[in-house]
Amino acid sequence: MTPSPQSLCDTPLLDAIHAPADVRSLPEAELPRLAGEIRARLVSVVAKTGGHLAPSLGVVELTIALCRVFDFPADKLVWDVGHQAYAWKMLTGRNQRMGTLRRFGGIRGFPFPAESPYDAAVGGHAGVALATALGFAAARDARGGAEHVIAVVGDASLTNGISLEALNAVRHTTERLILVINDNGMSISRNVGAIARIFARQLTGLRYNRIRAAAEAAGHRLRLFRLKAVYRALKTIVKGLLLRQRSALFEDLGLRYIGPIDGHDIPALCDALRAAAEGHVPVALHIATVKGKGYPPAERNPSKWHGVGPWAADAAPRAARPTWSAAFGKALCAHAAEDARVHAITAAMRDGTGLDRFFRDFPARAHDVGICEGYALAFAAGLAAAGLRPVVALYSTFAQRAVDNLMHDVCLPNLPVVLCLDRAGVVGPDGPTHHGLYDLAMLRALPNLEIHAPGDAAALAAALAEALRRDGPTVIRYPRGPLPEAAAPRLAGADPEGPVILALGPTAFWAEPVARALGLALEPVSRVKPLPALVRALAGRPLITLEDAAAEGGFGAAVAEVHRGPLLILGWPDRFVPQGSDGELRAACGLDAPGLRLRVAAFLSSLRP
Amino acid sequence: MTPSPQSLCDTPLLDAIHAPADVRSLPEAELPRLAGEIRARLVSVVAKTGGHLAPSLGVVELTIALCRVFDFPADKLVWDVGHQAYAWKMLTGRNQRMGTLRRFGGIRGFPFPAESPYDAAVGGHAGVALATALGFAAARDARGGAEHVIAVVGDASLTNGISLEALNAVRHTTERLILVINDNGMSISRNVGAIARIFARQLTGLRYNRIRAAAEAAGHRLRLFRLKAVYRALKTIVKGLLLRQRSALFEDLGLRYIGPIDGHDIPALCDALRAAAEGHVPVALHIATVKGKGYPPAERNPSKWHGVGPWAADAAPRAARPTWSAAFGKALCAHAAEDARVHAITAAMRDGTGLDRFFRDFPARAHDVGICEGYALAFAAGLAAAGLRPVVALYSTFAQRAVDNLMHDVCLPNLPVVLCLDRAGVVGPDGPTHHGLYDLAMLRALPNLEIHAPGDAAALAAALAEALRRDGPTVIRYPRGPLPEAAAPRLAGADPEGPVILALGPTAFWAEPVARALGLALEPVSRVKPLPALVRALAGRPLITLEDAAAEGGFGAAVAEVHRGPLLILGWPDRFVPQGSDGELRAACGLDAPGLRLRVAAFLSSLRP
Repeated sequence: MTPSPQSLCDTPLLDAIHAPADVRSLPEAELPRLAGEIRARLVSVVAKTGGHLAPSLGVVELTIALCRVFDFPADKLVWDVGHQAYAWKMLTGRNQRMGTLRRFGGIRGFPFPAESPYDAAVGGHAGVALATALGFAAARDARGGAEHVIAVVGDASLTNGISLEALNAVRHTTERLILVINDNGMSISRNVGAIARIFARQLTGLRYNRIRAAAEAAGHRLRLFRLKAVYRALKTIVKGLLLRQRSALFEDLGLRYIGPIDGHDIPALCDALRAAAEGHVPVALHIATVKGKGYPPAERNPSKWHGVGPWAADAAPRAARPTWSAAFGKALCAHAAEDARVHAITAAMRDGTGLDRFFRDFPARAHDVGICEGYALAFAAGLAAAGLRPVVALYSTFAQRAVDNLMHDVCLPNLPVVLCLDRAGVVGPDGPTHHGLYDLAMLRALPNLEIHAPGDAAALAAALAEALRRDGPTVIRYPRGPLPEAAAPRLAGADPEGPVILALGPTAFWAEPVARALGLALEPVSRVKPLPALVRALAGRPLITLEDAAAEGGFGAAVAEVHRGPLLILGWPDRFVPQGSDGELRAACGLDAPGLRLRVAAFLSSLRP
Repeated sequence: MTPSPQSLCDTPLLDAIHAPADVRSLPEAELPRLAGEIRARLVSVVAKTGGHLAPSLGVVELTIALCRVFDFPADKLVWDVGHQAYAWKMLTGRNQRMGTLRRFGGIRGFPFPAESPYDAAVGGHAGVALATALGFAAARDARGGAEHVIAVVGDASLTNGISLEALNAVRHTTERLILVINDNGMSISRNVGAIARIFARQLTGLRYNRIRAAAEAAGHRLRLFRLKAVYRALKTIVKGLLLRQRSALFEDLGLRYIGPIDGHDIPALCDALRAAAEGHVPVALHIATVKGKGYPPAERNPSKWHGVGPWAADAAPRAARPTWSAAFGKALCAHAAEDARVHAITAAMRDGTGLDRFFRDFPARAHDVGICEGYALAFAAGLAAAGLRPVVALYSTFAQRAVDNLMHDVCLPNLPVVLCLDRAGVVGPDGPTHHGLYDLAMLRALPNLEIHAPGDAAALAAALAEALRRDGPTVIRYPRGPLPEAAAPRLAGADPEGPVILALGPTAFWAEPVARALGLALEPVSRVKPLPALVRALAGRPLITLEDAAAEGGFGAAVAEVHRGPLLILGWPDRFVPQGSDGELRAACGLDAPGLRLRVAAFLSSLRP
């Protein structure tokens, strides 16, 4: 068979697979080769597109085993944090399109039901898969259906509050559900907490694996749940080990615990999945995988290779300029060196939020709370009430999980917590699950809160300094990507009484060519709440607002609430913004220079009597 | 000593207590009498003010014991769901003012740092106390302080996701923290889930208590942690029982487990608290209490007496009209009878949200998920994806915890989930933790979502019917309290080109007298997203918007975004709204008839050239 033209490497077995049924019809002996082809394809795709490489490399065998044992899409598979799901996409009819991964109009980086009937749920935010799977299971039970429902949850996701709420709910919700715990012993960076320790303890129980290795060395394959006669003698020993390894936690929660299973042993995985599918009791199937498995650079440094930009020779080069995250991290370290009250908190995103240096330089004041955003804010409230100055750095989209804590625990008692929203605005290839477009609308109504949206390095530094001085809560939002090298531009405009573009944060750079071309005044705005006095000072003039946020409810709405003259609100439209480069997305939504110019010109025309 | 004039019953011991130190100086033998006085005062206060009676009755002895053992406010006590904290307020200098409980300008129904230095944190939303306590503990450890940090968490709150995230974080955050688990075996209604079962198993272990009872019958008092010589013989037996009762869950989480302790035995509680305070390991102290303890009606029916209106003969009579909640519940039952796809979900609020009848009539389709709002929405997403029509009923303020799930799990895949927000708007005596003022601002920017705000029974029924027909997500918000008997009023106005009041939902009734008095047109509006066509049709006329929500970011902002003529936005101001009757709160914020008339008249004046 000839590899298809789209294929980036020689993957004949993979290329012949168009649905999970094709995986089932392969001889068992071919499966390791299929796994190898999937890995080769993964690496060659992600080298060009960028993406979540290490997590997907870790679950290749699991994905194959799931396709062998279950009947998708009749059976339902819910991936938690779906960046594990690239191999799944390859085996469910999307392999030929994988070259478009995370690109505008291409295959999404996360499971997405609109993309494929095989994707049962959206999988962009960690911690919800088990809850959604329980919904599928409850609906099946209500209908008297027979299909299987499987949730695949990483060990780090499992410590998210909603996962834990769901674990608590399993037993009284359904008698049939399979929770696969994909345990690679780390979240995006390293894993934290007591539950992680429980897993670690389980995995030290991989003495079991040593027994198996010995058996294999003797020319045998030991199967956990299909012990052949020749292994009878070993059975008691193995079972005894398993019994001791059973987690009291899961038993207490009413789940049958199976594991740990070597997550790179396809037959063992298939056996375990079949065993899990047979019973009428919810099962926690604990598998041990190696993040980055099969790609040595990723195995050696899975954090670095968790999510990566493209690195292929022919991929677009990446900017080497310092990012907003790095500038924030550096500024915060400077404050921390001067003020012992400054503590930093992140939720499994210490690299992504630029806090890596803070964690190195001030380890006693650095708190990585795992994927627990609500907890992060409630914990920060305690620190602040005790006299400290906690700075919480989250991605804007994940901070949506902490809105109630910001309101109840922080704003209501008016505590000096600083919440820094990284990745505010569109984030490019991660798409709609990760764009940070709703923060302004969600947070703007909260009393006592100040909200900054700096547009350049100086404004970021000023916002952070002001926030740390303030005896009340502050949000600072800034986008993904490189920090502008210049100051946010300000233009006087041709007519001193004419229209003014108020550009929030870095959108001043978007607005500059348009303002120049149309001879308009341009004012960079770096605070949304309270609105700068400037806005009211411009009461007599037509205004155009621009923001890297949803156009409804954000900065434009704040201006609309106080400005009664002509006003054009420009921001992201009222639909979910897809993935793509910033340029592609702005062009698609009329926020690139031509689009902006067209819309602003139409607005100016409408002003003429 | 003469009881103070404010005292509602004869409580001489209690009246002499102005700070916890006064509790410490009482002879131990007086403590049961103090507990009795506190209970008498609790009942007499709540009979007049309404409030959370049963939870507070259950923790009288615990509160006394805490005051005996610890040194507040140097030591920090964080109450989870602070409606347990009435006795705490009495013993920390607020007893004389308890008659103002939950009244405008009075003592708040929840711990509130601005009210007293003894209240370490706001305690209105369940599940955050342990997280905040860990913040206090981490700050203490960073400072090298010696104070104790105690969190008191109900068994139901403990199953909230943030509590579980915090439990997972305890061991790597601090070596010194006391978690008191106040276990009355029920949340507001009944408790659900595996963790509840674990507790139940512990409590059957109250065989321990039978041993103690036998010892007491023999004229002795058995103390768990201060075994006297005469009990030496029993020691081994008792310890053995305790060992077997130790919860594997807590041990796995790295907490030392102590319990169960009789939560109404002050000496046993003091001993246990002292033991917990001595070690250098975090402690989970499990106490068993009786909700409603000491007030027979509340003991018999603690759900009914969880939160009650005033029932004293001289208290204001309560309206007997059907509530919004009841009307919703009834309408939903009618749909459920016709359509087997209709399922109902609530988060420990089945009575409060009017779903009690649904739970009786359709138990197989009714899901009470406990205090787990995020889980509720993610679970609903699964039900909806599987073809059902889940209706989730939450209080508006608690739905703030599910904003991310609404966005990621429901709106992004455009699933037909109906989220009904009860208690949207001000809620009266529960105050700022419970007012539902931010839902419109938080949710309005979410794509695919429709948002209804019905103003009368017909509009509520229409909104629910439309939501259940729709192949996408819908939010329906409505307030606490009685359903209006009449249809939301519409007035033509004196001038067909003149100003129009657009009143959202039931605020049409607020606006009616003002519109009549000023001869203005009044249009009731029952949908915020998409805005009714009416709004654009009124483009040429001055508009006044009115809403029972924060004035920023909500309905008024939506109108401001599209309306360029004169506009007055009326809603709750940009500060936290205190507790009080609806009338008091509206008067305080210029939203009663005189206030509205004044502001509208000023706006009309500003229109004249």
